[in-house]
Amino acid sequence: MDEPLRMPASVTIREVGPRDGLQAEHPLAVDDRVRFIDAVSRTGVRKIEAVSFVSPRAVPAMAEPAAVWARIDRSDDVAYSALVPNRRGAEAAAEAGGFASLQAFLAASDGYNGANLGKTVEESVLDVRDVLAVGADAETPVEVTVSAAFGDPYEGRVDPETVLALSARMIDAGAAAISLGDTTGVATPRSVWGLVGRFTERFPNVRLNLHFHDTRGTAIANVLAAMQAGVIEFDASAGGLGGSPFAPDAGGNVPTEDLVWLLGEMAIETGVDLEAALAAARLAGDLVGHAVPGHLVTAGPAPV
Amino acid sequence: MDEPLRMPASVTIREVGPRDGLQAEHPLAVDDRVRFIDAVSRTGVRKIEAVSFVSPRAVPAMAEPAAVWARIDRSDDVAYSALVPNRRGAEAAAEAGGFASLQAFLAASDGYNGANLGKTVEESVLDVRDVLAVGADAETPVEVTVSAAFGDPYEGRVDPETVLALSARMIDAGAAAISLGDTTGVATPRSVWGLVGRFTERFPNVRLNLHFHDTRGTAIANVLAAMQAGVIEFDASAGGLGGSPFAPDAGGNVPTEDLVWLLGEMAIETGVDLEAALAAARLAGDLVGHAVPGHLVTAGPAPV
Repeated sequence: MDEPLRMPASVTIREVGPRDGLQAEHPLAVDDRVRFIDAVSRTGVRKIEAVSFVSPRAVPAMAEPAAVWARIDRSDDVAYSALVPNRRGAEAAAEAGGFASLQAFLAASDGYNGANLGKTVEESVLDVRDVLAVGADAETPVEVTVSAAFGDPYEGRVDPETVLALSARMIDAGAAAISLGDTTGVATPRSVWGLVGRFTERFPNVRLNLHFHDTRGTAIANVLAAMQAGVIEFDASAGGLGGSPFAPDAGGNVPTEDLVWLLGEMAIETGVDLEAALAAARLAGDLVGHAVPGHLVTAGPAPV
Repeated sequence: MDEPLRMPASVTIREVGPRDGLQAEHPLAVDDRVRFIDAVSRTGVRKIEAVSFVSPRAVPAMAEPAAVWARIDRSDDVAYSALVPNRRGAEAAAEAGGFASLQAFLAASDGYNGANLGKTVEESVLDVRDVLAVGADAETPVEVTVSAAFGDPYEGRVDPETVLALSARMIDAGAAAISLGDTTGVATPRSVWGLVGRFTERFPNVRLNLHFHDTRGTAIANVLAAMQAGVIEFDASAGGLGGSPFAPDAGGNVPTEDLVWLLGEMAIETGVDLEAALAAARLAGDLVGHAVPGHLVTAGPAPV
């Protein structure tokens, strides 16, 4: 049979293990975070969310971003980004310098936004505008994550129109790209087709990243659905570590090495070396001190 | 956007937890196996592979199938099947009586067939023919599983033509349906589209069941791909238990409750009650005495 829609020839993976992967873990030493970032920098991945300039009181595992950033062995082939919640974070990131982009964020609904940021969505819109202003001054592109875009653990379903309207405001305000986050793993292929289809129809020239959590075992299926809808950039995390400190049972991110294996088997280029990704996943497990949720670290690649 | 191919309105789940789910576990008491089958019988699932008439020396966890079968509380709404490896097993199942179908099996390649059955594929073809003959005499349909259909843990890739040629012989010999088994979780959406597309082109009137393992985290994505290719029957196992005693690291089956949740969210009818499926998954975990791989038992359904 013909394949259902054409699969992309190439997909960009943004490695978020050093940020989303570690943020809910027991804090690691700066040197261990550096080791981890250096390991994923050597996998061939093209983008890494390396650090987060958030309050160390709110997220202890993300403390000392400037120290981590100063010590890593930066690869010229990797675009590193920093997550920043507000003007203060953005200014600290700009001061540290050298990031390819800043990642601002807010949720699509007040429930999760309140739990995550202690603010309403409208209050967070002001913060994101501040980040966009700092980015403009520093000539650093700012991308915006709309989290809980497929559903909110506190409020339930989120209307796609709400997500699109919020995305439109962020794009109008200067966002260089949008990432839609399925923060607690409630998306399905059908809701992915629905939201992505409407997004790309409304914003045909805006780069779209998707960020799935495997809370209900659907993350890889959602990636497949999103590729069918034309998406070619996905967040993933070494070993599948990850989860929000403010979303109970969020479940891990898409495991990078699982995605790299699958896309490789499907002849979709990622640039990532599977063995290096597996090594990074094993390092992640060693550093956090528990088993990672990824499958490939246990099963290994299929025999050929 | 339009959905990539039409999704089915309804999917039949065959619950294989009592057989594939338990076969590699420490043997349970007959009464516990009866409790488990009775629990899944009450979920609304339309097909259950209840027992296996294999050698108790080879697979101790499947011992005493007739005793289990005699004691369960059979539902009129469920089609129960028994797995049978050869004439002797088929005769024992026919003697026990009351099965809606018998499930014969062989692998697509000698590597896994030898490990699983101690025979070449050609020797197993003779066994399956014997089962088909017993089924004909007993007026019980025989369905045939072709395992390792997407790859063999000992031999690597399996040529789709090999699978189709073997399926053709089984269909010519009287198989009422074919199940293609991804025994060790090496299938990808692309290989699913390829093999299923060729199967349905070659055998447009033969019912096709697919049996995926989540060894590499791709089982749900493969179900999605298969639905896009027109498949509407899938094996799944309560809690995602499962794996071959003869395929190391085979990984579990598709967790029934995860699949029921996903299909429900996608408005695809299964007839299965999610809460009842979750209860069966929890019972499965209690009986085997360890955590099950399914996601929903931990995460729960998404808030709505």
